[in-house]
Amino acid sequence: MISVEPRKVGRPRATGVSGDSRRDLLDAAAELFTTRGYAATSTRAIAQRAGLRQASLYHYFGGKDDVLAELLEATVLPSLQRAEELGALDVPPMVKLWALSEFDIALLCGGAHNLGALYLLPELNSERFARFRAERAALKVAYGELVDGPEVRVDLVFGLVEGVILTRREKAISEVADFAAAGADACVRVAGCAEDDLPEVRAAGLRLCR
Amino acid sequence: MISVEPRKVGRPRATGVSGDSRRDLLDAAAELFTTRGYAATSTRAIAQRAGLRQASLYHYFGGKDDVLAELLEATVLPSLQRAEELGALDVPPMVKLWALSEFDIALLCGGAHNLGALYLLPELNSERFARFRAERAALKVAYGELVDGPEVRVDLVFGLVEGVILTRREKAISEVADFAAAGADACVRVAGCAEDDLPEVRAAGLRLCR
Repeated sequence: MISVEPRKVGRPRATGVSGDSRRDLLDAAAELFTTRGYAATSTRAIAQRAGLRQASLYHYFGGKDDVLAELLEATVLPSLQRAEELGALDVPPMVKLWALSEFDIALLCGGAHNLGALYLLPELNSERFARFRAERAALKVAYGELVDGPEVRVDLVFGLVEGVILTRREKAISEVADFAAAGADACVRVAGCAEDDLPEVRAAGLRLCR
Repeated sequence: MISVEPRKVGRPRATGVSGDSRRDLLDAAAELFTTRGYAATSTRAIAQRAGLRQASLYHYFGGKDDVLAELLEATVLPSLQRAEELGALDVPPMVKLWALSEFDIALLCGGAHNLGALYLLPELNSERFARFRAERAALKVAYGELVDGPEVRVDLVFGLVEGVILTRREKAISEVADFAAAGADACVRVAGCAEDDLPEVRAAGLRLCR
């Protein structure tokens, strides 16, 4: 058993309503869910880790599943938004695919905690997480619009992007931008980009990176 | 909560010592770990699901973690053995990579339960699972010997192979052999195989498949 210490021992905050407390609760939950496990983490432990009272958690969230849903959605919504932005641009699909996968991999590899590790929780099958599942499905559709070829190719590109979650589980990824660019190269290769075309696709994709 | 029904209601077996009971316990655990979660599954629930008494489980296994370790090792050891067999052959590394990734993807996609989904459990950090972690690391080294290029390329190939765990989480993969072959194509593409060489690499790789 891993003991859970509040971040600031002896300094429990009053039941606050600042935006910061909400963020602290999400951060604490991200840490505990990924290190102790979702089932093993109580709302009390999350609040304690954030230096707050349990009642504060229920001020901001309906419960533990609401906290998880928000953390999960934060791993998908930015990429979905990026896909929409890229969709409006007048550049070849392969370049959009490079830019989207670069963004998505950087998102999944960035941040202090490997939230994608929560994708495999059996709890996610429940109705509470239908919105997250729909958003993730929509992201995959966005990939599908950029990948020419059979459905299995889309599965493999999307699996390659999300596969970084398993890579990150094993080793720290220190140079996220380099790793994301290499991952984007790999995605367009899987999508059928010829080796000769890759430098140009990468250069054009990099220009789209913000 | 998902209720756990014994397979054969009213027919609990005597504390048996057949090889079959051991297999039944592993199957029951695989189902419960992947559908209810590892933390939420007790040894009693596993035994009950297998139609056995809890004491039978302790006849075959030291405890729940032993059952998990055996299930996990079964997702890696066959591929590790395949890598050794392929290592001894006189064929180009790219062909070996195709054959190894085809075998590995078929293993991860085969079977009734998505055991790879257990790779992300925080519990796997404990000493009990050191052997599994070492075996998985050895498999990655075997991939590394077949992939020419920087370490990140090995990460991405291995991530692509294991990424099928996440694909399988979302959708049933009905044609495992076709999916594995497409996945192996993707792996050699990520490893730098030129599109023109791919048909030959695939044909040679398929000849190595048993």
